[in-house]
Amino acid sequence: MTGYYTNMLVDTPDHEKTPQQAQSCLRGQVLTTPVLRADSLDQLAGCQIAFKCEHLQKTGSFKFRGASLAVSRLNDDCAGVATHSSGNHGAALAAAATARGLPAHVVMPDNAVRTKVESVKAHGGYVHFCQPTQQAREQGLANLVSDGFVPIPPYDHDDIILGQGTVAVEFLDQVQDLDTIVAPIGGGGLLAGLAMAAAEHARPVRIVGAEPIGADDAARSLNSGQRTSRHEPDTIADGLRALIGQRNFSILNQYAVDILTVTDAEILSAMNHLWRTLKQVIEPSGAVALAAVLKHAEQFSGQRVGVILSGGNLDLEPMFALLQPQCAAR
Amino acid sequence: MTGYYTNMLVDTPDHEKTPQQAQSCLRGQVLTTPVLRADSLDQLAGCQIAFKCEHLQKTGSFKFRGASLAVSRLNDDCAGVATHSSGNHGAALAAAATARGLPAHVVMPDNAVRTKVESVKAHGGYVHFCQPTQQAREQGLANLVSDGFVPIPPYDHDDIILGQGTVAVEFLDQVQDLDTIVAPIGGGGLLAGLAMAAAEHARPVRIVGAEPIGADDAARSLNSGQRTSRHEPDTIADGLRALIGQRNFSILNQYAVDILTVTDAEILSAMNHLWRTLKQVIEPSGAVALAAVLKHAEQFSGQRVGVILSGGNLDLEPMFALLQPQCAAR
Repeated sequence: MTGYYTNMLVDTPDHEKTPQQAQSCLRGQVLTTPVLRADSLDQLAGCQIAFKCEHLQKTGSFKFRGASLAVSRLNDDCAGVATHSSGNHGAALAAAATARGLPAHVVMPDNAVRTKVESVKAHGGYVHFCQPTQQAREQGLANLVSDGFVPIPPYDHDDIILGQGTVAVEFLDQVQDLDTIVAPIGGGGLLAGLAMAAAEHARPVRIVGAEPIGADDAARSLNSGQRTSRHEPDTIADGLRALIGQRNFSILNQYAVDILTVTDAEILSAMNHLWRTLKQVIEPSGAVALAAVLKHAEQFSGQRVGVILSGGNLDLEPMFALLQPQCAAR
Repeated sequence: MTGYYTNMLVDTPDHEKTPQQAQSCLRGQVLTTPVLRADSLDQLAGCQIAFKCEHLQKTGSFKFRGASLAVSRLNDDCAGVATHSSGNHGAALAAAATARGLPAHVVMPDNAVRTKVESVKAHGGYVHFCQPTQQAREQGLANLVSDGFVPIPPYDHDDIILGQGTVAVEFLDQVQDLDTIVAPIGGGGLLAGLAMAAAEHARPVRIVGAEPIGADDAARSLNSGQRTSRHEPDTIADGLRALIGQRNFSILNQYAVDILTVTDAEILSAMNHLWRTLKQVIEPSGAVALAAVLKHAEQFSGQRVGVILSGGNLDLEPMFALLQPQCAAR
């Protein structure tokens, strides 16, 4: 009978409460991203891995899901939106806002990946640089909010979490027998959304977070049961340098989500496997989940594991510069 | 009535005669590769492009199709197979032969891409290096044949051509309204197979070859109506350095297939677009078809164009070495 009453509630929502409900709201706006597999990576990991290709989502990361949901809620008289972002949320928000004819202002750390800065601009966003600290990012956003723009922060926001959670809804529809889903954690928008989606799913699915050791605020927070404020990120995974959000911490704590940590060298090794074997251009942050599966293989042995490839935005120019001399004479 | 008699023939074939027939023979052996699109690349090119992801085929290139068909024809008492290859056909043949329990010997130029040499070995093949000339490659293969191995050359072979042609059969099934298919040409196995498949297709589809200016033997041969023997390839597209084959020339001449040429710089630019926008790891040879579409845009304006991404095998280590210093301290 519980199911019946739940359905009654769904019939007259004032707001989506689960990623499952958010998914129907996003239909036609976000891409259904493909799932890839590779026998040789299964052998390497000792489990069956399905890779969810969110780097093929619009704007090159899962961030377009949450941003689209948040923008869909805005009133038509909204003056515009503002956020802080290492880049992927900024580009996603710019794309979603521009599609509604709204300006998007994005505070970015001045050490942001160049491709990500260009992407925010290419999708119609206005970039405001700040020092690469959590405090400077939040202050920059506060300034824009005082100018009248609606804040849509990158992860500590209900709609962002619900929107990112649609990754799991879609994934579990595509691959119905997953035991575990592993995803990277920065601020925790994606991971909290996945945990909420898994809680609503018909069969049990374990959700695991993967975090760089150089930005292990989520692991420390969840292990201690207290959200840390000590945070000096130092990792190649530029998309995972943010501090875990309040809402995100609460949700991950509530669902007792485990976090596994990996070194930058392990991230780079996983990224190499993804490029070489899956032939996918994955940014460092997008390779962290595979790195965790390979490092902590005993936790996944024989399982059916879903790995989220969260984004594919990185500076390729230095890499292509290596190929230039080979063709300079022709 | 023609269709009826054709079907009668299909019921008792001694040998497949079309890529359409070859496709059923390969079912379950080769992967159905996905098709990708990107709005921004459509805008750049001025046409609608569907990208056929043969770099996601087993062994990382379309070559596995032809090699699998050729190996399926061998008698059980075959001593093994031999070929020459810049790498992709070698790895494909090694994988197909190993799956049948047969040894595969591969003559490779000593300047072959390291990843491709490793791939031949990883798939169970034996590598024999030679000078990087057409003559040395053919002499190396002749030596192996005199040792009793069955030659399965990389392109000038009926089964290879039919097998590669299944790319078009599959592609036209996935995207039914294509006006044109553009594919790279080296020896011409893929392009000849595509031309045969298009000739059997229910509606007209134009087949266009894309060739590096530094290895434009196919363009010169088809323009003059005579297969050239003058060939000193100099291009970054290592998979397209071979001389067009006899059979391949005849088929392409018969179907009046056009060849468009591009510079190495144009190849590299197209490759950059594919990595950055499609997020696909494509080798230089695999980017030549898009390079031709972008350079000769007036020929494709407003059309629905299928572009074959033929392979994704290249040395990534120098590229990843660039990222290492960033994470050395962590």
